Amino acid sequence: MPTTPNEAATPATSRHQRRREKTRARLIEAARTLVAERGVDAVGLSDITEAADLGVGTFYNYFASRDEIVEAVAEESIESLGARMDSMTEDMPDTAERFASSLRHLVRHAMSDPLWGWFVVRLGIAHPKLIGILGPRAARDLRYGVDAGRFTITDIDIATACVFGSLLSTLHHVVSAEAPENIDEIYARAMLCMVGMDPAEAEEVATRPLPELP
Amino acid sequence: MPTTPNEAATPATSRHQRRREKTRARLIEAARTLVAERGVDAVGLSDITEAADLGVGTFYNYFASRDEIVEAVAEESIESLGARMDSMTEDMPDTAERFASSLRHLVRHAMSDPLWGWFVVRLGIAHPKLIGILGPRAARDLRYGVDAGRFTITDIDIATACVFGSLLSTLHHVVSAEAPENIDEIYARAMLCMVGMDPAEAEEVATRPLPELP
Repeated sequence: MPTTPNEAATPATSRHQRRREKTRARLIEAARTLVAERGVDAVGLSDITEAADLGVGTFYNYFASRDEIVEAVAEESIESLGARMDSMTEDMPDTAERFASSLRHLVRHAMSDPLWGWFVVRLGIAHPKLIGILGPRAARDLRYGVDAGRFTITDIDIATACVFGSLLSTLHHVVSAEAPENIDEIYARAMLCMVGMDPAEAEEVATRPLPELP
Repeated sequence: MPTTPNEAATPATSRHQRRREKTRARLIEAARTLVAERGVDAVGLSDITEAADLGVGTFYNYFASRDEIVEAVAEESIESLGARMDSMTEDMPDTAERFASSLRHLVRHAMSDPLWGWFVVRLGIAHPKLIGILGPRAARDLRYGVDAGRFTITDIDIATACVFGSLLSTLHHVVSAEAPENIDEIYARAMLCMVGMDPAEAEEVATRPLPELP
């Protein structure tokens, strides 16, 4: 609900809002951790309120269901990263590097934040929210590469699915096995080959210095 | 428990054994359907016995836990297919075709049996049994291809993970979207490119006539 400037200015309202945000963040954090540990289907609404030490009634002030809070966690954990990757790559002249840089950042994110990695892995390849956030971005980058003559792809949808499935398996490897330090480069190289680039060229693109996320 | 020839010969025992096998098959079938519909974490032991119209006590005569029956379903649905693919491909002279043919059969199996496809998709990329059955076979075929000079791969484990993740995403595409009829060829072509083959050659290998499974 939008607040008028007047409402926002009263200290009582802003205190109230701050408290609301804090409670919401506690629920979100509890849901993220539980889903990362157990998988979304094994997490009930009451598990989340218990972990957040809040009542079920409080939960319903913020979210209508278990699925809704999981969608909110996905939105906050992945959409913001996606937006940062978009602004990092939008001026990159080479479409192959653009595609590779985003993929590398996703893998690196799981390396620096394994809980995030587990959350994405446990959501799984069939989760509509995950597909909805990452799918269109991957498809867009693949199309840019095809238009620029960098990629040769038979079917964009299937290529997108393969990039996405490979990403989740690679993240699973990152969080559960002894992964090489340059796994982001190895994964990006494999994906560049998959979309038709010559292995030597894919290697060169995948190992370029990776710009920081904004 | 092994039976002596004498025991096996009495009609009563073999009737008893047939009944046991039938009951076990009912439990397996119920578990397969429920996991395919809901995902493994959302299926409890009592859901399985209810769907099979059997008591919980009966369940424990066959399996020790929910996880054990899911493993048995995975074993029966995937290991037997794996073994048939092994014998189909063992005499193929071209390692690239060998790899591609197995992948194509997995995709086609999901096309002809969507319940099987959903079962594999819902087990997910992190399921140890699925990784245990398909992972070593994929890794073996990749190694053959590298040894024969057909494939160029940076890291066999990561390539295996990518083949596996891409497979599950492709199966998900098969069972949930309008997939092209030759999706098995498109997927195999993408995987051959991913392991370093030239796109035109990958296309040629991926579209060869596919031998039947024994």
